[in-house]
Amino acid sequence: MSSERAVLDAHYMARAIELARKGLYSTHPNPRVGCVIVRDGQVVGEGWHVRAGEPHAEVHALRQAGELARGACAYVTLEPCSHHGRTPPCAEALVKAGVARVVAAMQDPNPQVAGQGLKRLADAGIEVASGVLEAEARALNPGFLKRMEHGLPFVRAKLAMSLDGRTAMASGESQWITGPAARSAVQRLRARSSVVLTSAESVLADNARMTVRGEELGLDPETTALALARPPLRVLIDGRLRLPLDAAFFQAGPALVVTAAEVDPRYVEAGHELLHLPGSDGRVDLPALMLELAARGINEVLVEAGAGLVGAFARQGLIDEYQIFVAGRILGSNARPLLDWPLEKMSQAPHLQITEMRAIGDDWRVTAVPKPAPGV
Amino acid sequence: MSSERAVLDAHYMARAIELARKGLYSTHPNPRVGCVIVRDGQVVGEGWHVRAGEPHAEVHALRQAGELARGACAYVTLEPCSHHGRTPPCAEALVKAGVARVVAAMQDPNPQVAGQGLKRLADAGIEVASGVLEAEARALNPGFLKRMEHGLPFVRAKLAMSLDGRTAMASGESQWITGPAARSAVQRLRARSSVVLTSAESVLADNARMTVRGEELGLDPETTALALARPPLRVLIDGRLRLPLDAAFFQAGPALVVTAAEVDPRYVEAGHELLHLPGSDGRVDLPALMLELAARGINEVLVEAGAGLVGAFARQGLIDEYQIFVAGRILGSNARPLLDWPLEKMSQAPHLQITEMRAIGDDWRVTAVPKPAPGV
Repeated sequence: MSSERAVLDAHYMARAIELARKGLYSTHPNPRVGCVIVRDGQVVGEGWHVRAGEPHAEVHALRQAGELARGACAYVTLEPCSHHGRTPPCAEALVKAGVARVVAAMQDPNPQVAGQGLKRLADAGIEVASGVLEAEARALNPGFLKRMEHGLPFVRAKLAMSLDGRTAMASGESQWITGPAARSAVQRLRARSSVVLTSAESVLADNARMTVRGEELGLDPETTALALARPPLRVLIDGRLRLPLDAAFFQAGPALVVTAAEVDPRYVEAGHELLHLPGSDGRVDLPALMLELAARGINEVLVEAGAGLVGAFARQGLIDEYQIFVAGRILGSNARPLLDWPLEKMSQAPHLQITEMRAIGDDWRVTAVPKPAPGV
Repeated sequence: MSSERAVLDAHYMARAIELARKGLYSTHPNPRVGCVIVRDGQVVGEGWHVRAGEPHAEVHALRQAGELARGACAYVTLEPCSHHGRTPPCAEALVKAGVARVVAAMQDPNPQVAGQGLKRLADAGIEVASGVLEAEARALNPGFLKRMEHGLPFVRAKLAMSLDGRTAMASGESQWITGPAARSAVQRLRARSSVVLTSAESVLADNARMTVRGEELGLDPETTALALARPPLRVLIDGRLRLPLDAAFFQAGPALVVTAAEVDPRYVEAGHELLHLPGSDGRVDLPALMLELAARGINEVLVEAGAGLVGAFARQGLIDEYQIFVAGRILGSNARPLLDWPLEKMSQAPHLQITEMRAIGDDWRVTAVPKPAPGV
């Protein structure tokens, strides 16, 4: 009996996670959350959080369930909130609706509120459970969780390389080593991120805008519209303010420019923000920038740059996930390296766990995460 | 009715291919071949070719079927032979046994005999068909087919690299960047090959033997015994005869040494063969060596060497398949390249098709084959 309940709990939670995923491109700075309400073996309500300031997943699902919520079981991918934010607390709404049981995939990661929502429900006589498909639920919100748990955003580095690990010829010749399916996947990575971060060097080389282009997302019209309504903040690392204000990057909309140089008022006049954040080496202080972005509610940062900036992030241990698009080319032994990161000894060579390799059109995508050295 | 027959033909041929695969490590220089005999919906005989000089797959299957072969259908992964080799022709044996139908996955690739076996059968009043699961049957014997069709062996290059495409630190420090599962897979690549080819530089660096080690194959005892009874020929490219005869490589058994230097009688005295094959550039003539190996009945060549020799094979268009084992490490931008192959322009960068990426223990294996540039 109890094992059958576990099977059904996982079944309905899987649906709630599927619903949460619909908010992949729009909930920033909030987490993606889904909710399913089940009564007598029937789904009577479904909801997902669409965007900040709008109702939470539970509210949508309760509205759909109406009177049928009384005595029902609510599955939520994240512990219902117990505090008044821009919307009233969901725990309160579940109590009022008279649900008999609430199953959460995971507790609220914010250490100051963790467990309070479930406690509020239990105090009201509702049966509560937590930890169903927790790993899958955590995977929905890597950035929100990292920010809540560590005060930092989740940093994803996107790279594109040849089979022999090169990004461009020595001359710099490089564009389009990967095909349209890979470019579309990169567009989706941009769209899900709170910040797309690049370097003046990259933008100067390609005259890049670093925007999300709806027609390249490869998503349905509804999801595309949601993504375009919540574009990521574009962050430019430009230590010496080399990128001119008439560059396509700046013309494409407001950006945050981070520099080690003196502040120049023309950036603000042109509608951009300029952040002076020099490190001890005279370059931009990347760890300080990550703290600053997290403080602004940034969940996921996509670093899209060349070997220099991505190498700097890697050397400073700031990358949580690599997504490497691999093209079926050999660029040869004098081509540019994947990362500017000189190492002398094998013992210095960082370990990563390759978690996935998957075909993306004619190219392949390798996902890897840093891991401690064996035996450490 | 005819589509049901196609389904059943594919079903029995799949089993014949499965049988053929049992000979992966032992049939050299012959092809891997399997045979299934079916009568009234029952498999009455199965066979596979074990090793050269022993009976062909059809003979094993006919023996098992006995009198039940009369009126039966025989499925063979390769057109039955029609000539007297070290064993009598199989087409003859099938006629004598009185089978009613013969289905071959593919014709004999040897242009001088192609179709003769099937013709002999048809002349005897047997219904014949060909082309069932042909692609799968061809994949059994890439080396035998390349040799028959082009007079060259199938050359497979095995490489091991970090995620950033590096094979060793600048100092040469390198061993064991991949784990035990990848090393076991490499052992199986060696065991299936007719030749394992390496360079004096590689052997000197690692004091390598380049042998097949039964305990590392990860195969059942019967297959391991077959593999060890038919070890690949070890071929050493040593342009200037730098590897001393007391090296572990030479102590491990007889080898073929290919050089551009003057022939030294001590190699032959020590039980090795020395082949003088200088190219116009004073180095070993690799294309000529491939022709020579094919003439000796070599089907599959595994090139296991460093960036220098594998780069030379690649530059000369001699590689049919890359198997790249990728470790979850970053070796950094001053580490050694995958291939010594300097290229200046993107238009020179060769195209490959990545056909598979698969987890092998903690590492991953990428399979790629050269392909013409798009639009060429």
